Amino acid sequence: MNTRQLHELAQQLRVDSVRAAAAAESGHPTSSMSAADLMAVLLANHLHYDFERPAHPANDRFVLSKGHASPLLYAAYKAAGAINETELLTFRKLGSRLEGHPTPRRLPWVETATGSLGQGLPVGVGIALAGKRLDHTGYRVWVLCGDSELAEGSIWEAAEHAGYEHLDNLIVIADINRLGQRGPTRHGHDLDAYARRFKAFGWHTVEVDGHDVDAVERAFAEAGSTTGQPTVVLARTLKGKGVAAVQDREGMHGKPLPDAEEAITELGGVRDLRVEVQSPPAARMLHAVQGGHLDLPRYDIGDEVPTRDAYGQALAALGHARGDVVAIDGEVGDSTRAEFFHKEHPERYFECYIAEQLMVGVAVGMAARGWVPYASTFAAFFTRAHDFIRMASISGAGINLVGSHAGCAIGEDGPSQMGLEDLAMMRSVYDSTVLYPCDANQTARLVAATAGLEGVRYLRTSRGKMPVIYGPTEEFPIGGSKVLRASAEDRLTLVAAGVTLHEALKAADALAEQGISVRVIDLYSVKPVDRATLREAAERTGCLLTVEDHREQGGLGDAVLDAFTDGRPVPRLVRLAVRTMPGSATPAEQLHAAGIDAESIAAAARLLVEEAVVR
Amino acid sequence: MNTRQLHELAQQLRVDSVRAAAAAESGHPTSSMSAADLMAVLLANHLHYDFERPAHPANDRFVLSKGHASPLLYAAYKAAGAINETELLTFRKLGSRLEGHPTPRRLPWVETATGSLGQGLPVGVGIALAGKRLDHTGYRVWVLCGDSELAEGSIWEAAEHAGYEHLDNLIVIADINRLGQRGPTRHGHDLDAYARRFKAFGWHTVEVDGHDVDAVERAFAEAGSTTGQPTVVLARTLKGKGVAAVQDREGMHGKPLPDAEEAITELGGVRDLRVEVQSPPAARMLHAVQGGHLDLPRYDIGDEVPTRDAYGQALAALGHARGDVVAIDGEVGDSTRAEFFHKEHPERYFECYIAEQLMVGVAVGMAARGWVPYASTFAAFFTRAHDFIRMASISGAGINLVGSHAGCAIGEDGPSQMGLEDLAMMRSVYDSTVLYPCDANQTARLVAATAGLEGVRYLRTSRGKMPVIYGPTEEFPIGGSKVLRASAEDRLTLVAAGVTLHEALKAADALAEQGISVRVIDLYSVKPVDRATLREAAERTGCLLTVEDHREQGGLGDAVLDAFTDGRPVPRLVRLAVRTMPGSATPAEQLHAAGIDAESIAAAARLLVEEAVVR
Repeated sequence: MNTRQLHELAQQLRVDSVRAAAAAESGHPTSSMSAADLMAVLLANHLHYDFERPAHPANDRFVLSKGHASPLLYAAYKAAGAINETELLTFRKLGSRLEGHPTPRRLPWVETATGSLGQGLPVGVGIALAGKRLDHTGYRVWVLCGDSELAEGSIWEAAEHAGYEHLDNLIVIADINRLGQRGPTRHGHDLDAYARRFKAFGWHTVEVDGHDVDAVERAFAEAGSTTGQPTVVLARTLKGKGVAAVQDREGMHGKPLPDAEEAITELGGVRDLRVEVQSPPAARMLHAVQGGHLDLPRYDIGDEVPTRDAYGQALAALGHARGDVVAIDGEVGDSTRAEFFHKEHPERYFECYIAEQLMVGVAVGMAARGWVPYASTFAAFFTRAHDFIRMASISGAGINLVGSHAGCAIGEDGPSQMGLEDLAMMRSVYDSTVLYPCDANQTARLVAATAGLEGVRYLRTSRGKMPVIYGPTEEFPIGGSKVLRASAEDRLTLVAAGVTLHEALKAADALAEQGISVRVIDLYSVKPVDRATLREAAERTGCLLTVEDHREQGGLGDAVLDAFTDGRPVPRLVRLAVRTMPGSATPAEQLHAAGIDAESIAAAARLLVEEAVVR
Repeated sequence: MNTRQLHELAQQLRVDSVRAAAAAESGHPTSSMSAADLMAVLLANHLHYDFERPAHPANDRFVLSKGHASPLLYAAYKAAGAINETELLTFRKLGSRLEGHPTPRRLPWVETATGSLGQGLPVGVGIALAGKRLDHTGYRVWVLCGDSELAEGSIWEAAEHAGYEHLDNLIVIADINRLGQRGPTRHGHDLDAYARRFKAFGWHTVEVDGHDVDAVERAFAEAGSTTGQPTVVLARTLKGKGVAAVQDREGMHGKPLPDAEEAITELGGVRDLRVEVQSPPAARMLHAVQGGHLDLPRYDIGDEVPTRDAYGQALAALGHARGDVVAIDGEVGDSTRAEFFHKEHPERYFECYIAEQLMVGVAVGMAARGWVPYASTFAAFFTRAHDFIRMASISGAGINLVGSHAGCAIGEDGPSQMGLEDLAMMRSVYDSTVLYPCDANQTARLVAATAGLEGVRYLRTSRGKMPVIYGPTEEFPIGGSKVLRASAEDRLTLVAAGVTLHEALKAADALAEQGISVRVIDLYSVKPVDRATLREAAERTGCLLTVEDHREQGGLGDAVLDAFTDGRPVPRLVRLAVRTMPGSATPAEQLHAAGIDAESIAAAARLLVEEAVVR
């Protein structure tokens, strides 16, 4: 498109943004208007994308990091012929695909859900890494960022990594419109301030008047021809550009224009231009290539193996069986044991250094390109990426997160390194699967099983050695459990997983010696939970005692309750969990101090059984 | 101290680090050894600190951002006479104050718990901001960072803010030892790479050989005399410096030296140098100054007021009554209503822009200096700072977090903006208080009450208007609840809070018209929970129906269970919660789609009552 046409297209995008927000009576038209010229130039002259085949392997990828500018995105879809006029005006209405913030759950052209700022770029880095190192189909990744979100640290985690990895297939378009939600940004229109920062992180920078379509055209061309480093196009723009009542004015964020009709007139009226977006080159998906037979590691019953070791070994094996599995780690691969995968599949291993938000963002980006990522760090440090995990669930992203060093059982390192809140966090994630194995064979089986699941999958592993109690052919369905001790005389059920399962078994043995028979359930599938088995145990034994190396909120104990919240009678329940603030101590001392070791379990069980007798 | 003495002191710090780790049989001596010269120069010649009076208002503040280098910190405490030889060797043992990672819960000289990397600097920024804008006692804030942690985005959130705020009382000492946990860092010994980044963010930078004590001495002096901007001293160091078996070698992270005796000999043997740390100047605490009478806003019953408005108005009032209250926001003060405080107390308002980790870090830093911070953003976006909140609880920091836009009731903006996991997150935080008011007077009272609590306090506010149902003199104790409907004929209890409380009241009225009497409890104190009232309701009505605008995991429903997990009989329980992935829709449509509006509640209640009859 030429200058005049681009200008007309940009005005159409503005008008359609204004119309969508007016119809919805909410939304962010002014944040859309600032970037309309940028979007027009991108759509008409630079993007290679087949809207009829969003999965095309050579499609460029566009990420709207400033997700609130969704009216602009939907206006662009309309200009490209992907949606029609009628649908545009369903914006933000019940049942519409055009949500306030875009999500791939509803729209096939959206790579990742945005709306929590600062996340589009890390995900874009993941896609760009996939493009450079895995897909090799030559696509570019375009990320439209706002200026406010450049305050998020996750942006700089991503900028650092993109520079370090020389991602010249990644182009950030930064819409520097000077105004955040509640007023001016830190740097206003000081483009140089942003340029200095990106340059320092190894980026090529181009500064441009974001409303001069010819200048933008040249800037995108320069970005496209830059090799060896990513490019940021820093565009000076005006929020609400084109409508005097709102242009460059504070207090105009996140609301429809005061007079939409007048604004549309001022913008030159409604247009119906149609853009022929350039097609991607022919290309073939590579990652569908599968490997061979899955040869999981096998451990002998009685061996002492940390579940984190089994994770690393199983993942390495899975990497041979499946060519689409990739591993990502936050510079602790020697601890999480992701290094085992690294050694055997270096080309599919991605080191994200100590930047957990980036790590999860990269996983989401790779999942968007069809890869099956396993991202690992300490269970505790996934809290760093909680917002990314939440947004991944909104995307419906299929990612595996593996948290090692669960619970106080890690010992001397102390509470900062202990995952004590991870089950609560991961269980509250929509449509998540949460698994917590207690032995090496179980871990290996669960690692293999998670590859084929939907949504966010979480596997919790442990630092210390634990005895292998299951044979290598034992099966562990998602949503299942294992009843390890049971008799007709059971007077109580112990429910545990991971390290506390072994403590529960010891407690059961000690109790048996005292003539008290208790049932023991290994609740390795924390979510979904095995309702049938728990209900049967409740009926037979009347009382459940849950034991977890986790805070008492949101973990195993609460998961057990899921089986009983449909109005049926609830068994008596007692939860043992970490209710103290641990310090440094040995693993055994930690478990004892928290009251979740065999001795504590047996004592609590005795008390409950005696109480039941009294009653 | 002169060159020779500084060198000797540094060697002593190394030797004591080696000894502590050897005694503990774990720990991070090599990460301590790289920074020993830096610490020696700081302690002997630059730090102004009275170890006998850690609360001294003019004490410099030292933050060990690389918290795993705790042996170095404790060795420095010993050199300063704060701890003795015997205590040093209790490192990492059960009951010792000298944990694997330092925490102010146990040691009075520690400002903040560290060990999750990248957090010391944001907290340091909070302390430095307090120093510049609130305390005015002239102290400096010294933060010792590792190089690996410079990959964390939170570091750059903090670097950006420190530069922007011209925090020349903040000095970062960056121990660039080239090696992370599992191998080399991104930039190795390329000090210029780090210098470019910090410079771009507005910092003064000094590059130095970190083992040349004279050069370090000059660097610290330069840092101390720099005005108008923060300084980073980038020190080239060697991990494990001084012991050939480990120096600059991979695979030596986080473990005792292979031969401690030999290492000590190589380092010149055990020394017992004592440092006279310089005293701080005389100074007076300012923030103890209290304001006047607390004149909370008062709302009339029946008025329609968003609880976020009541939060802002109450906080502004609290700011008049208490001179130690400060407000911090993440560039959404117009949404959270922190702007009301800003208007009346601009000198105690801190804008952190869209950087939630920084925001919580700043709150922790200010709390460390005795201020009472209220930090606010959308409830959803506190997930961004989950790891900081977790670490704040390890610190025992007294901070208030206020999350607005709770739940799907926000309406059209969609799931990215909805706080649906916040209660689960905040409940799982050790020693936290979690409050969720349903009306304006209740909100105002709870805002005032939280100022005096210990630990992490969370207040959840709502976007939309809700009717005022309590009078302005009603009291709302922490750990309490309100029984709003009760009769001897109650056949069920509805437990709700916030927006669903109003839906529950409507449902109760509708049920009453159908001859079904139900109890209604306003569970505004989600943690601690009012066990007595819940138990009484269970005994009287037999069945509890909880309703929450939150995921079904970890929120109100699970909080109710807390009252029944001591082995007593549990009532029948049903939980209504947000089990779907919301899209865009009006608030009323959202509540209905999630099955938590009055109609859904009444339907569920009828079903339960009928089931009970059948049984």
